[in-house]
Amino acid sequence: MIFASDNWAGVHPAIARRLSEEAGGYSAAYGSSELDKNIEQKFNQLFEREVAVFFVATGTAANSLALAAVNRPGGVSFCHREAHMIEDECGAPEFFTHGARLAPVDGEHGKINPLNLISEIARFPPDFIHAGQPMAISITQATEIGTVYQQQEILEIANVAKSKGLPLHMDGARFANALVALNLTPAEMTWKSGVDIISFGATKNGCWCAEALVFTDPQMAKDLPYIRKRAAQLFSKTRFIASQFDAYLTDNLWLDLARHANIMAKRLRDGIVESKSVRLGWEPETNEVFCIVARTLSEHLRQQGAVFHEWNPPRSKQNLIGEDEVLIRLVTSFATEPDDVDQFVDLLG
Amino acid sequence: MIFASDNWAGVHPAIARRLSEEAGGYSAAYGSSELDKNIEQKFNQLFEREVAVFFVATGTAANSLALAAVNRPGGVSFCHREAHMIEDECGAPEFFTHGARLAPVDGEHGKINPLNLISEIARFPPDFIHAGQPMAISITQATEIGTVYQQQEILEIANVAKSKGLPLHMDGARFANALVALNLTPAEMTWKSGVDIISFGATKNGCWCAEALVFTDPQMAKDLPYIRKRAAQLFSKTRFIASQFDAYLTDNLWLDLARHANIMAKRLRDGIVESKSVRLGWEPETNEVFCIVARTLSEHLRQQGAVFHEWNPPRSKQNLIGEDEVLIRLVTSFATEPDDVDQFVDLLG
Amino acid sequence: MIFASDNWAGVHPAIARRLSEEAGGYSAAYGSSELDKNIEQKFNQLFEREVAVFFVATGTAANSLALAAVNRPGGVSFCHREAHMIEDECGAPEFFTHGARLAPVDGEHGKINPLNLISEIARFPPDFIHAGQPMAISITQATEIGTVYQQQEILEIANVAKSKGLPLHMDGARFANALVALNLTPAEMTWKSGVDIISFGATKNGCWCAEALVFTDPQMAKDLPYIRKRAAQLFSKTRFIASQFDAYLTDNLWLDLARHANIMAKRLRDGIVESKSVRLGWEPETNEVFCIVARTLSEHLRQQGAVFHEWNPPRSKQNLIGEDEVLIRLVTSFATEPDDVDQFVDLLG
Amino acid sequence: MIFASDNWAGVHPAIARRLSEEAGGYSAAYGSSELDKNIEQKFNQLFEREVAVFFVATGTAANSLALAAVNRPGGVSFCHREAHMIEDECGAPEFFTHGARLAPVDGEHGKINPLNLISEIARFPPDFIHAGQPMAISITQATEIGTVYQQQEILEIANVAKSKGLPLHMDGARFANALVALNLTPAEMTWKSGVDIISFGATKNGCWCAEALVFTDPQMAKDLPYIRKRAAQLFSKTRFIASQFDAYLTDNLWLDLARHANIMAKRLRDGIVESKSVRLGWEPETNEVFCIVARTLSEHLRQQGAVFHEWNPPRSKQNLIGEDEVLIRLVTSFATEPDDVDQFVDLLG
Repeated sequence: MIFASDNWAGVHPAIARRLSEEAGGYSAAYGSSELDKNIEQKFNQLFEREVAVFFVATGTAANSLALAAVNRPGGVSFCHREAHMIEDECGAPEFFTHGARLAPVDGEHGKINPLNLISEIARFPPDFIHAGQPMAISITQATEIGTVYQQQEILEIANVAKSKGLPLHMDGARFANALVALNLTPAEMTWKSGVDIISFGATKNGCWCAEALVFTDPQMAKDLPYIRKRAAQLFSKTRFIASQFDAYLTDNLWLDLARHANIMAKRLRDGIVESKSVRLGWEPETNEVFCIVARTLSEHLRQQGAVFHEWNPPRSKQNLIGEDEVLIRLVTSFATEPDDVDQFVDLLG
Repeated sequence: MIFASDNWAGVHPAIARRLSEEAGGYSAAYGSSELDKNIEQKFNQLFEREVAVFFVATGTAANSLALAAVNRPGGVSFCHREAHMIEDECGAPEFFTHGARLAPVDGEHGKINPLNLISEIARFPPDFIHAGQPMAISITQATEIGTVYQQQEILEIANVAKSKGLPLHMDGARFANALVALNLTPAEMTWKSGVDIISFGATKNGCWCAEALVFTDPQMAKDLPYIRKRAAQLFSKTRFIASQFDAYLTDNLWLDLARHANIMAKRLRDGIVESKSVRLGWEPETNEVFCIVARTLSEHLRQQGAVFHEWNPPRSKQNLIGEDEVLIRLVTSFATEPDDVDQFVDLLG
Repeated sequence: MIFASDNWAGVHPAIARRLSEEAGGYSAAYGSSELDKNIEQKFNQLFEREVAVFFVATGTAANSLALAAVNRPGGVSFCHREAHMIEDECGAPEFFTHGARLAPVDGEHGKINPLNLISEIARFPPDFIHAGQPMAISITQATEIGTVYQQQEILEIANVAKSKGLPLHMDGARFANALVALNLTPAEMTWKSGVDIISFGATKNGCWCAEALVFTDPQMAKDLPYIRKRAAQLFSKTRFIASQFDAYLTDNLWLDLARHANIMAKRLRDGIVESKSVRLGWEPETNEVFCIVARTLSEHLRQQGAVFHEWNPPRSKQNLIGEDEVLIRLVTSFATEPDDVDQFVDLLG
Repeated sequence: MIFASDNWAGVHPAIARRLSEEAGGYSAAYGSSELDKNIEQKFNQLFEREVAVFFVATGTAANSLALAAVNRPGGVSFCHREAHMIEDECGAPEFFTHGARLAPVDGEHGKINPLNLISEIARFPPDFIHAGQPMAISITQATEIGTVYQQQEILEIANVAKSKGLPLHMDGARFANALVALNLTPAEMTWKSGVDIISFGATKNGCWCAEALVFTDPQMAKDLPYIRKRAAQLFSKTRFIASQFDAYLTDNLWLDLARHANIMAKRLRDGIVESKSVRLGWEPETNEVFCIVARTLSEHLRQQGAVFHEWNPPRSKQNLIGEDEVLIRLVTSFATEPDDVDQFVDLLG
C-alpha cells in the first residue's frame, strides 16, 4: 500500500529491458549518437512538428532551464501559488535564472485563474523598471493537486501570455497522466493551445530517470546547449536516457502506464467516496487523490502498512480541514495493483 | 577501434544486472531508502572514515558543487591550466559559485607545480580586497592527459593548501585508474594525503551515470543538501544510482575494470613505442595515450575505422608538434579488447 | 508644491558646504582616510557600541548587501508584502543573493504581523530541503506607507527572529523620520530591540548620496568588504560620502531635518482632515501622507502645479477606494515649506 | 608629493561649484530631470551620434555592466592579462555576468596583441559547447600601465572583434588622458575605430564620483535600465552626477585637466631619465610613470614624504627588476603641482 509518490515505484520491465540492451558496444557521447537522433525524431513525430529536445537529470532541472532559456534581468514569472516550482524546488528556478522572481497567482483547484493572472501582470507596467519586468508564465499539467487544465483553460491563459508577449511553459512532470485524462494529443495539449515550452516528465511514469525539455519553437532554445552544459545537466552516456525514452514512447507504452495509474486513482477515489470515515478534498482528475481524515485514522492507516504523505492544504482549502484532521495525499503509479487499493479502502472502513 | 573516450563505452554487465534487479518494488525517494543508506555505509568503509556522500548527475556537477560548498565572495580557485574544470565545463564552476574565478596554474605533465601554485596564490595578499580572495585548490587525478600525481606530489600541494587555509579538491573523474596505477587505498590517495573533497567518478569506468561527491569532513558539506537540490541535482529515484555503485564497489569490480583499462593503454603505448610512424607525446600512466602523428596518418587511421579525437596540445608541449602533425588522444576503457589495440597498432606500421 | 518624493529635494546647505570644504587636498582612497575613520567612530557613538559601517551608492544596495551578508543557498527572507525590497528594487535582493527568495508577509498598516510571520516561517520546516531554508527577516522603518513600528512591535518580531535563529534587518531609508516620530535613540530602535543590520539612509533626508550599511555585530560583516567590492559598490573617493555624513550627524542636523519633514506632513494631514473633498488613507506617522481623492480632483491638483504620485493601494486597503477615486502619496522633506503645504490644502477646498 | 593614485585628489573647483549650485530646489529623480536630459544631449554631441548613456557609481560598475549587457551563458570575454577587470575588481565582472569568464590575453606594453587574441579566441570553436562561447573583447585606454593604444592598434583589435561577431568594450577609467595623448576626438577613439561600449570615467580626472557607461548603439543597451537598477546602480538624486558632468564637459575642462596630468607625468619622466639612481620601467604615455628603484631608495623616498604604491610587475617585465629593486607607480592628476614633481625628482639625486 505505497501511495507516497509515483517516484517511489521503480521502472517498468520493458524500459529496464531496453536499457539493458544498450549496455554493450560503443556510442558517441553527449547526445550525438544515432540513438539520440532517433529519439529526437520521435519527439518531432509526437508533437507533430520540429521541436528542440534536451534531456536533463530532473524535473526541477527541466523547469529551471525552461525559465533560464527565456530569462530577462529583473524578470518575473507567474505560476500558481502552489506550483512545484515555488514550493518544492529549493529556489532552483531563481538560481538558474540568476534571481528572476516567481510571482504566485491564485486560482481554484490548483489552476491559475486568468483574471488573477491579468491583475498580477498589471503590477508590472511596461518601463516602470523599479518593479522588474514580466518574463514568462508557467502552468502545471497535471497540477500539483491532481487536477487538470481543460484545453479551453490553457487557451485562456495562452491568450494572456500572447497579449503580453510572454512565453508559456508547461510543467509536465505528470504530462502523460493529464494527456490521457483529457484524451488529447500532445500537440493539442501544448502548442495547439499556445504552450511554448514543456517539461516532459517520464520518471514518475515508469522510467528511472528520463526528463526532457521540449521547445516547440527551436529558435527559442538557441542558447540552451550552453545553458544546459553550464548547469552540469549534459550527460555523457546519453543513451541511458535515450533508450528509456525509446521504450517509453514505443507502442504507446507511456499512455498505457498513465492510464493505469489514473484508473487506480479512480478506484481509490470511489472507495473513499463510499467510506464514511474519510472525505475527498476535491475530485481527483489524474493519479493523485487527496482526502481529509481524522488524525487518529491517519496513524492507524500507517500502522497497518499504508505509506503516504500528509500535505499542506492549498490556502483556499484550509478552512475545510478540522483541527483533529489532516489532509493526506495518495498517489498511484504504473505499478499500483488493484489489491493495494482495495486493501487500503478496506482499512478505511 | 574506439578510442574516442571512455564515456563511449556502455555499462559493465554486472552493473546492468544489478540495476535491473532494482526495477521492481518500491523505494523511498530522494536518497532516503535503505539501499541509499547502505551505499553511504560502503563509502565510509571505502574511505576508512565517516564521509558525506552525494550522488549527482555528472562529473561537472560534482566538481562545481565541490567549489560551491566552499564558496567565498570574490573567491579564486587554483587548478592546472589544462584542467577539465577550466577547459571543458562551459563555465559550470563559475555558474555554481556565482562567479568565483578559476586561476590557471602551470606545471609539467598536466600537474600543478607547487612553486607556481605558491606564486599564484601570492598574487592575492590577505585583505587586498581588490584582487579577491583564494578559496580552494583543485587537482585532477588521473590528470586530463593521463598522468598521475604521486602521493608525495599530492602531499606537497596539500601542504600549500593547509598553510593558506584552503580546502583541497580532487577531480576524480578517473579516480579508479589513478588508484590502481599508484597501488594506493582510497584513504591514502585522499585524506591521508590532505585531500578534503573528491569528485568520485564511476561513469567513465563502467557505469551508466554514477558520480558521487565525497567530503572527508561531513561538516564541510552541511549546506550541500540545499546547494545540490537548488542545482537540480537531487534525483528522485536515487536507487538507480545507488544500485550502480553497489555492483561497482562489490568484490573490487571497480578496481578490476580500471586495471583492465590501464593495461590496455600500456599495450597501446608499447605498440606505439615500437612503431616508427608515430611517437608518444609523453609517458601514459593510466588509460589515456597521447601520441603525435602525421596529419595524413591520422586521416588514414580514421578511414580504417579507428575513432579518436585530435587534442589541443598542452601549452608546454606545443613546440613538440610539427606543422604537418597532430596530437591525438587514445582512451581505453573497461570495454577495450586486446584485439582493438593490436589492430590499431598494426595500422601504424 | 512638490510632494513627489523626498528624493526630489536637493541637499541641505550645511551638507553642501561640508562637501565643498573637502574638495581640495589629497586623501587616501577606498575608505582608508582619516575622515573615513572619524565617521566610523561617529557611527560607533551613535549606536553606543562598536558597529561595522559600509558606505554604498543606493538604498537598494544597502538592502541587498544586507541580505547578501547572511545569504544561504535556497534561502528565503521574510518581509512585508508591500516592502520596498519586493516592490521597487527590480530584483536586486535576488540578484545580490544569487536567487534567495523574498517571501511576502501580510500585516496591517504596512507592518509585518508577527502571527503571520510565524505561520509563513512554519512553511519551511527544518531539513525539508525541497522548500528551501529561512535566512532573514526584514522590516522597514518607517514603512513604505509612512507608518512606524512601535518599539514593542519590533521586539515581537525580533523574538520570532531569535527563536528561529534568523538575523533581523531594518530597511531605514527613512530611519531618521521614524526615530524622531518614536523619540527613541538609534540604539533603542535597533539592537536594543533586537535589530542586527540597518540600512541607514540619509539621501532622502538632505544628502546627495549617503547610504550606510550598519552591522551591530561586526563579525556578521566579515565577508562584506569582498561582497561590496564585488558588487561595484566601493567608491574610490569615499570622502565625498564621509563628508556628507559628517555634516549630517553634526549637532543633530539629521534629526532636525527629519523632524521638520514630519511636522510638514502633520500640517498636510491636518489640512486634509479638515477638507471635505479628500480623506486620509490612514493616519500618517512620519513624512508620507496617503489620501484618497476623486480622479478629477487629482487631475485638477496637478494642473494647479502640485506634483505627486498615484499609488498602488495596499492589498488590504483596496476596497476603501472607489472606482472614480485614486490613492495619492504626498511626501514631505527637509526642504518642504509651510507655504507649499498651505497652498496645496487650499486647492483641496 | 602624492603620487599614490589620481583618485587621491579631490574635486576640481569648477565641478565643486557646479554641484553646489544644484543644491537647492527640486528635481525629478532617477534620471528623468531636465538636467539629466541635457547631459545626455551633451554626450550625443561629444560622440557625434546618438548614444545611450548610463550613470553608475564606480568604474568597476561601468565595466561590469558593459559585460552584463552583452552577456551569454558560458560566455568568455577577452582582455589583457593585466587589465583592471581581471586584477582589481574582486570578481565583479563575473558576478554581474553570473559567471562569464575573463580570459587573459598577453601583449607588450599593457596592450592586447591581436595575434594572441586570435589564437585565444580560436580555443573556443563555434558549437564546441564544452569550452563555452566568446562574448566580448575589452581593451583599457589608457592602459593600466600608462600606455595607450594607437588608433591603428584599436582598429586591428576591432577587426578581430568584427570577424568573430563580438562587441568591443573600452575601459576608459582614464579616457581623457588617452584622448589628449593621441589628439583624437572621442568619436575617433571609439566608434570610428570600432569600439561599441565605453566606460567613460571622470572620477579620476577631477570629479567626486562621475562614471558613465556609453553605448554607441543604443539598441545594445535595451535591457540596461533593468540590469542597472537590479545591480543597485541607479541613483535617485542623479543631478549630483549630472551636474559634475556638466562642469566637466563645459569649455573642455576635462581635456585641460587630463592634459595637465599628462604634462606633470612627462615632467616626472624627464626627471627620472636624468637621474642615475632610478630607471624607467617603460615610456609613459599618459599620467602614470613606472620606474625601477632600489628597495632602500623606495623606503627613503617614503620617509621624505613621497606617497606611491609598489606595483606587481607585468609578467613580461619581471626579469627587468633586480632582487633588491622594486617597481613603483607614480600617478599624476589634475591637482599635481610642478613643485611636487620637482621636489620628488630632487630626492632621487
